[in-house]
Amino acid sequence: MEPLQVIRTSQPKSKPNEGELGFGKYFSDHMFVADYTSERGWQNARIIPYGPISLEPSAMVLHYGQEVFEGMKAYRGMNGEINLFRPEKNIQRMNMSCDRLGIPQVDPEWMLEAICKLVEIDSDWIPQRVENSLYIRPFIIATEPCLGVRAAKEYQLLIITSPVGAYYSSGMAPVSIYVEDHYVRAVRGGTGAAKTSINYASSIKAQEEAKRQGYSQVLWLDGIEQRYIEEVGSMNVFFKVDGEVITPELNGSILPGVTRDSVIAMLKHWGIPVTERKVTVEELFEAHRQGKLEEAFGTGTAAVISPIGAMKWGEQSIQITEGHIGEVSGRLYDSITGIQQGKIDDPLHWRYLIG
Amino acid sequence: MEPLQVIRTSQPKSKPNEGELGFGKYFSDHMFVADYTSERGWQNARIIPYGPISLEPSAMVLHYGQEVFEGMKAYRGMNGEINLFRPEKNIQRMNMSCDRLGIPQVDPEWMLEAICKLVEIDSDWIPQRVENSLYIRPFIIATEPCLGVRAAKEYQLLIITSPVGAYYSSGMAPVSIYVEDHYVRAVRGGTGAAKTSINYASSIKAQEEAKRQGYSQVLWLDGIEQRYIEEVGSMNVFFKVDGEVITPELNGSILPGVTRDSVIAMLKHWGIPVTERKVTVEELFEAHRQGKLEEAFGTGTAAVISPIGAMKWGEQSIQITEGHIGEVSGRLYDSITGIQQGKIDDPLHWRYLIG
Ligand SMILES: Cc1ncc(COP(=O)(O)O)c(C=O)c1O
Ligand SMILES: Cc1ncc(COP(=O)(O)O)c(C=O)c1O
Repeated sequence: MEPLQVIRTSQPKSKPNEGELGFGKYFSDHMFVADYTSERGWQNARIIPYGPISLEPSAMVLHYGQEVFEGMKAYRGMNGEINLFRPEKNIQRMNMSCDRLGIPQVDPEWMLEAICKLVEIDSDWIPQRVENSLYIRPFIIATEPCLGVRAAKEYQLLIITSPVGAYYSSGMAPVSIYVEDHYVRAVRGGTGAAKTSINYASSIKAQEEAKRQGYSQVLWLDGIEQRYIEEVGSMNVFFKVDGEVITPELNGSILPGVTRDSVIAMLKHWGIPVTERKVTVEELFEAHRQGKLEEAFGTGTAAVISPIGAMKWGEQSIQITEGHIGEVSGRLYDSITGIQQGKIDDPLHWRYLIG
Repeated sequence: MEPLQVIRTSQPKSKPNEGELGFGKYFSDHMFVADYTSERGWQNARIIPYGPISLEPSAMVLHYGQEVFEGMKAYRGMNGEINLFRPEKNIQRMNMSCDRLGIPQVDPEWMLEAICKLVEIDSDWIPQRVENSLYIRPFIIATEPCLGVRAAKEYQLLIITSPVGAYYSSGMAPVSIYVEDHYVRAVRGGTGAAKTSINYASSIKAQEEAKRQGYSQVLWLDGIEQRYIEEVGSMNVFFKVDGEVITPELNGSILPGVTRDSVIAMLKHWGIPVTERKVTVEELFEAHRQGKLEEAFGTGTAAVISPIGAMKWGEQSIQITEGHIGEVSGRLYDSITGIQQGKIDDPLHWRYLIG
């Protein structure tokens, strides 16, 4: 592989106010770009000033949606060091997504190097406040200019970064979710397990309907029977029922979340029983009736742990943990964010130090 | 609405050889562009020289796939006139797709005017050979630069055109299709009935597998039971069984094809029995065993009518019409292309004359 070319910006932007970062609104000074052609493979890797890209109007991504992406974060540690969190898992998942979408995979080491180098160059964009971070968004788009429906022969890999605020600006707070029984996100044999734009476009309508009804997120059911719980918006989902933590098994239509995997491993490390299996929505509402639904929470890179305080399914609405944060949810949040921020020990070796 | 601004190219491109057009490889000299913002609606409509577009790397279409598109053709008539075929149907379908994807709809008259004006300006790009045509591709992309998952507040509508060759360069020929029983294209509650990039990205893997096995197209089954026939690649599908023409009913996961609608209307006009209903793949293979599967064909803008000569489902392969073109398929092809090309009468008023 040729060496990575770096062209630094001559006009660094001014940094946004750390109290008003939000999510994915500001972008750092540089971006990584590499090109793929079927003859030459991935090539021309470069870090260049962040700015607009030029696409042919017939670029295949704009017509047939061949795209994959990832989402991960760089954290400023207690002593100024920079940490990633299990970056190899995101790269591995990106390659799985590529496989499903007919997109050429990348060399994992090359990709990790690209991420590290980009974060290093823009390290002054990693927020100082411990609860903030630099969100890293790698994505691959089909750039070949052609309207035939088939796998493209030309692609571009880009990595952009965005300083982001704490998901919960005023401390972790339970969210309310709406169990979606009309729209379907994914089905076995579809693309649900891949991280690709196409799974999100289809969810927007349901998300808007949930918002209209006062719920902040949609909980998706399986596409076949519309009974089995899949995931929440952009999070995987866990329930604590009668002392046991349960989460839907990876069935091919759920995104295999890095946070999900970390939560399962951490619970096992702690000796708390955790099971991956099919979970029906009836089962949860029944457990609630019996007073056994002790906690519910979503897991994802953005919020890490997101306690679920209320759920609506058809005509039934339930409250969980009465607006408080469950014990396991709180402990997981503190531990995982503690590891990410370099505040505590890292028993499972998840931190990846840059530089 | 402000008037349409026109900036003509000062460097017209040379035209490709009409014998080697293929599909969607060459593009005419101009394109139509309009912008949308949630404050101002659709605005800034313009026809400008065809060329690359500039997108922010964080443009939402590249991350969450909010996109819809259409496909239609302009035909050069026998006396040099220019015909569209039922353009109002495509515009209506585009608005339906917009609704499903959370994209703002367009004013149908404004859109039709844009298409006509663009085709007029590039009328020398409409091929002379009667079997060729100018393919018209309107599409809308979410351009707002933001990584939050929600409906965008900024969009661009583009219309590009491409001179295309006859789908069957050496006359209409039967295709062989592969009944897909692993991958799933769409499910009720999903986006199958919308014309959006996201339905195509998910099909590429199946399409490649079918090609590897020597089949030219995939026939999709329903996502739930994987028994009911939905559609073929980028065509709807019809079968003639024991004298009756049948086609899968519009169930919310099938694209409502303009050609499909035209075929049904034409068959009715001719007094040939035609039924829209659920059709299982078992039923077709059983009809074939009994010698009653008389014809099978796909319908779509690209090929108009595409006779199906062979079908494979699991371990079973069948031949239909022994490599010949069925009587109804041939008659439909001649009639619909005849109307498009202005060669014959237009009993159902489908031709739309430009200029
Ligand atoms: C659909 C979906 N499920 C789950 C997740 C959680 O995955 P991770 O923990 O890797 O962030 C995400 C997002 O990141 C997602 O988009
Ligand atoms: C998935 C799909 N089904 C059916 C069709 C046929 O529709 P129409 O007859 O409007 O071209 C198309 C394409 O055009 C398509 O992409």
